[in-house]
Amino acid sequence: MKAARIVKLNEPLQIQDIQTPKPKGSQVLIKIESVGVCHSDVHVWEGYYEGIEGQQLKTTDRGVKYPLTPGHEIAGVVYDLGEESEGFNKNDKVLVYPWIGDGVCPACRIGEENLCDKPRSLGIYVDGGYAEYVLVPSYKYLVKIGDDMDTDTSAPLSCAGLTAYGAVKNANLKPNDNVVIVGTGGLGLMAIQVAKAVTGARIIAMDLDDQKLDIAKKNGADNTINSKKEDPVKAVMELTDKLGADAVIDFVNASKTVETDMQFLRRRARLVLVGLFGGELKLSLVTMPTRAYRLIGSYTGTLNDLIELVSLASREVIKPVVSNRFKLDEATKALTMLKEGKILGRGVINP
Amino acid sequence: MKAARIVKLNEPLQIQDIQTPKPKGSQVLIKIESVGVCHSDVHVWEGYYEGIEGQQLKTTDRGVKYPLTPGHEIAGVVYDLGEESEGFNKNDKVLVYPWIGDGVCPACRIGEENLCDKPRSLGIYVDGGYAEYVLVPSYKYLVKIGDDMDTDTSAPLSCAGLTAYGAVKNANLKPNDNVVIVGTGGLGLMAIQVAKAVTGARIIAMDLDDQKLDIAKKNGADNTINSKKEDPVKAVMELTDKLGADAVIDFVNASKTVETDMQFLRRRARLVLVGLFGGELKLSLVTMPTRAYRLIGSYTGTLNDLIELVSLASREVIKPVVSNRFKLDEATKALTMLKEGKILGRGVINP
Amino acid sequence: MKAARIVKLNEPLQIQDIQTPKPKGSQVLIKIESVGVCHSDVHVWEGYYEGIEGQQLKTTDRGVKYPLTPGHEIAGVVYDLGEESEGFNKNDKVLVYPWIGDGVCPACRIGEENLCDKPRSLGIYVDGGYAEYVLVPSYKYLVKIGDDMDTDTSAPLSCAGLTAYGAVKNANLKPNDNVVIVGTGGLGLMAIQVAKAVTGARIIAMDLDDQKLDIAKKNGADNTINSKKEDPVKAVMELTDKLGADAVIDFVNASKTVETDMQFLRRRARLVLVGLFGGELKLSLVTMPTRAYRLIGSYTGTLNDLIELVSLASREVIKPVVSNRFKLDEATKALTMLKEGKILGRGVINP
Amino acid sequence: MKAARIVKLNEPLQIQDIQTPKPKGSQVLIKIESVGVCHSDVHVWEGYYEGIEGQQLKTTDRGVKYPLTPGHEIAGVVYDLGEESEGFNKNDKVLVYPWIGDGVCPACRIGEENLCDKPRSLGIYVDGGYAEYVLVPSYKYLVKIGDDMDTDTSAPLSCAGLTAYGAVKNANLKPNDNVVIVGTGGLGLMAIQVAKAVTGARIIAMDLDDQKLDIAKKNGADNTINSKKEDPVKAVMELTDKLGADAVIDFVNASKTVETDMQFLRRRARLVLVGLFGGELKLSLVTMPTRAYRLIGSYTGTLNDLIELVSLASREVIKPVVSNRFKLDEATKALTMLKEGKILGRGVINP
Repeated sequence: MKAARIVKLNEPLQIQDIQTPKPKGSQVLIKIESVGVCHSDVHVWEGYYEGIEGQQLKTTDRGVKYPLTPGHEIAGVVYDLGEESEGFNKNDKVLVYPWIGDGVCPACRIGEENLCDKPRSLGIYVDGGYAEYVLVPSYKYLVKIGDDMDTDTSAPLSCAGLTAYGAVKNANLKPNDNVVIVGTGGLGLMAIQVAKAVTGARIIAMDLDDQKLDIAKKNGADNTINSKKEDPVKAVMELTDKLGADAVIDFVNASKTVETDMQFLRRRARLVLVGLFGGELKLSLVTMPTRAYRLIGSYTGTLNDLIELVSLASREVIKPVVSNRFKLDEATKALTMLKEGKILGRGVINP
Repeated sequence: MKAARIVKLNEPLQIQDIQTPKPKGSQVLIKIESVGVCHSDVHVWEGYYEGIEGQQLKTTDRGVKYPLTPGHEIAGVVYDLGEESEGFNKNDKVLVYPWIGDGVCPACRIGEENLCDKPRSLGIYVDGGYAEYVLVPSYKYLVKIGDDMDTDTSAPLSCAGLTAYGAVKNANLKPNDNVVIVGTGGLGLMAIQVAKAVTGARIIAMDLDDQKLDIAKKNGADNTINSKKEDPVKAVMELTDKLGADAVIDFVNASKTVETDMQFLRRRARLVLVGLFGGELKLSLVTMPTRAYRLIGSYTGTLNDLIELVSLASREVIKPVVSNRFKLDEATKALTMLKEGKILGRGVINP
Repeated sequence: MKAARIVKLNEPLQIQDIQTPKPKGSQVLIKIESVGVCHSDVHVWEGYYEGIEGQQLKTTDRGVKYPLTPGHEIAGVVYDLGEESEGFNKNDKVLVYPWIGDGVCPACRIGEENLCDKPRSLGIYVDGGYAEYVLVPSYKYLVKIGDDMDTDTSAPLSCAGLTAYGAVKNANLKPNDNVVIVGTGGLGLMAIQVAKAVTGARIIAMDLDDQKLDIAKKNGADNTINSKKEDPVKAVMELTDKLGADAVIDFVNASKTVETDMQFLRRRARLVLVGLFGGELKLSLVTMPTRAYRLIGSYTGTLNDLIELVSLASREVIKPVVSNRFKLDEATKALTMLKEGKILGRGVINP
Repeated sequence: MKAARIVKLNEPLQIQDIQTPKPKGSQVLIKIESVGVCHSDVHVWEGYYEGIEGQQLKTTDRGVKYPLTPGHEIAGVVYDLGEESEGFNKNDKVLVYPWIGDGVCPACRIGEENLCDKPRSLGIYVDGGYAEYVLVPSYKYLVKIGDDMDTDTSAPLSCAGLTAYGAVKNANLKPNDNVVIVGTGGLGLMAIQVAKAVTGARIIAMDLDDQKLDIAKKNGADNTINSKKEDPVKAVMELTDKLGADAVIDFVNASKTVETDMQFLRRRARLVLVGLFGGELKLSLVTMPTRAYRLIGSYTGTLNDLIELVSLASREVIKPVVSNRFKLDEATKALTMLKEGKILGRGVINP
């Protein structure tokens, strides 16, 4: 089978012809129809994240090994099943849950495989979906999708959608909460849709781009703040009776955005940090207890979250927007365009 | 009545003769038998907390006004009741819940008055317990204590005990969790007692002082680490199969301790920040989502927490240790000794 | 002031001229503009509920005393305030939270005054809103409503709306749950609106009346079942892949409905019992553990729930429908019409 | 291998020589050292549970098929592993989690396999531990036990201990709660130990037998009630300021005990039903909402619960008492003795 693989960091992906895996036991082989192109793929390609004091956190230090086939937002059809697989048949249309753990750590034991001590996520630690086929370790990681859902718009649910969904859950929103959603790109937009559908909270969308804010409003934001045009702290305070936001979900998570977030938090506020932009925050330690803040790192979501999300998506509560489609041998182009900010919505590769 | 009041920051408290309040409506007047001397009192006396980049966070910026009668760990007897008071009689022995809110903010509505947007805590925003009597705004803030509980050892429950109890709750401990308790002074010791009594978690006590660690062990710590004598990160890793701590409760909450804490957190760990030592932490933002950490500021506890705690204390599950007793005109001496680290256990003033 | 009072059970209410109360301390006097007519008022008027084996549970055994001014769904304006009242001004438009407790029991301590051991609910244990004015024990029980919300449609929020809201919360719904809502009268309809707005669950409405089911569908029900025309058990099973409902909220709560409910529960299901129709259920005890069912009695909601609900209502997420308006001296007529099933939607008295 | 199998209901088990399974994929073969003899085994042997109105609920209607090797409390050593098994080695001493689900239902997705829609529990739906070896479908269902824990006293943790642990969790106890534990046999005793270790609640033990109550007191009960000698309702009311119990855990769950339980419930109480004795309860429906009761069926526990429990047991917080040991060919004798109430503590078969 063909696969687009990262062989050297930052160099063009190589289209290799590798052995198509044969599923054993409870494994399943999926024929990939759509695989999303995600910012995490860019980080894995570049080989690092931004740490504190200008240092880089290397992906190899987190256990990533190269050469690697990236791609974790995978939708396709069941192509072959190991003899112990059940519940699925050939040609079933499925979404793959990629955030696979070792199954025995405390996180895995309660269904939080995405937070496993020793993760085996597809496309990050194990070969993923920039390929014609992908081997999934168990049928348990598959989620059926209906005939009315196409694979292109479904694929991004398993990372972009799931990350937005997990973040909204972590914000623990109530109907009379004011939540600020920082960054209204693909993930922020889905978070707005989800928060609208299942929390009843008042949603304040914040971004630098009026066009994005317009879309945010159409998708459910009650208020919008353009933080380039107006003072974001003052704007949030005005919208919240000078009390501050009950919760903030930051899909950028860079020094500059989080420093600003910290200035408009209400006492007891939850600040959910999601983005992988990175950098450092100088945190005032005494402020944490006196203001009773909670800083919550939020990373993707559970398999059960994905099932809930697919249920919502099947009723069109959440609708990922696919803006660019690529062939497998255009993988490098797709990553480059994403890195350069040229993809609005979501890019998808059709192998 | 006599009261020891802060008139000028850092100068000796003045013993003033002021009007004894007369309770109206649901108010109650308490004759004070014991009032704890707390580190917060020292901060209120000094007028600031340590912020980031060497800056001071002034108490007046948080709304504290002087002259002020400090003292929030108050135990005594009911002396007089407003005509709408109920449920209590004269001479009832009571503990006062001092973390009073405005009663109408979202925190107050669910019983979290300690986290009110506009707090009215006794001894901080309103005259407190370094006095012969204190006026409590409603009988609802009183908790009866049994005849077998004396006021000296009960008074510290309402701040030291409650803060420890609230912190343990915020750490959300399970029986197979490893929790590191940083700082085994009065609060840390009570946290160990509480965690032992109601969580089943394995408790690792960390301090710089072998004598304190011995006491920690006698009070329920399963393991101890002297972070002056051995590398605390390495020590925690060895005790936790190289995975790190599931939760940390930091009763110091200074730059140095929290920087260390961050290095031995397991994925998904809760880091509960309690102490008011302050300073700054350079937080790596990208690490928050990838490691799914939770930084939780914990500030005292709710009235319901205090009731639960008194219930535990009545069965001797938790036992504050009173080491020094003072008269009212020794208030300055008490604060000075506490500031200089000369009080082991808890100091109590008997007005 | 004039008040319509129950002097003898089941006899016409007497319009009495009684002393207008004068608010003291933190009390507030409300000039009533709208008071809802609720099924509970009928029970209080009749003096009993239906128990097991045909026995009646008397209201006097629950502590109700007559003569009594009924009425607990109260909206109006602040008319006078005690000297310790704060946060409100004369003429403020408000909703009254009527489910008042003693403030010191464990339920009250965590804001669940509606479940107080010794309740003092307005219109049930204390004179309520079938009158020109009502005395509220504290300003803390008032919730401001906006100028765009009228008192007629707001009044039912404090019981009908709140009961629906509390029941939905108790059902603990997830986006991929199937919930059956039994009874689509006023409360059921509001529960459908709430569940639609804040849970993402699939809603199956069940009733005997096609017209009501049509309205249910327009208000958010995904499916409807007319249990007079088709076998309700078979119908639920067909809609749920033969697994049964994840949750049921029964607004009738009579022997017949609950016996049916028990037959279409999925393993782990929550059966939320809300209605006061009563009667008995023969419960198979061994089925409780083997099927892991939860039977949850749900009674009104907390003050905080009401605040959340008003927030939702101000954004028109939930809209009580007022169908009949009465004058104060028509109180007996209102109760009689309600008892006879002649009020669709909600009846409101304008004193 | 040899296995003791139920071939015909209520007739002596047959010792058969059957094919020793060969583990494939992620399966593991365990050499059994100890298997507990549980009341559920008696029900499976008899083929029914007690339902309502004297009817029997047949095990075959729940999906049990005969011939069957019973036995679900299994401890032993790893004997052979499928090629995809990991994390375990031959001769590792392990406890088997028997409450296995299909892995794909909503319960399984969040780690509640014990409440699966289509259970495959060992010894109930699939051949279990009354045999020399047992085939476990995945290494994920194994829990390592330390060298200091023997298999005889560990085996009962996976059902008796786990059921007690799950029931205590479902009771949601707080330190100032009064909990009544009905039935102080093996399960009740473990529930007392667990509640003592992790909740801080006041424990009231209730039984008909003074000797058992003495043991209950030694194991942590604060108070005891002999319901044969004194009126249990009056006794509970006296111990709870006439308010009733905050929670009850009924390990008998027969008509008579639950009817009594219902009479001493405090408003908001949780009544956790655990036992499989069965029969019917005439439940007053209107009482459910007005008193806000919760009836909670509790069935065993999750794999994660078992891990927590083993952690507690390794620190001797909970200690199952083994009173009788049998050989494999004495299986019928063991079941008979248990049925006749002749086993105090727990019986264990050593194949």
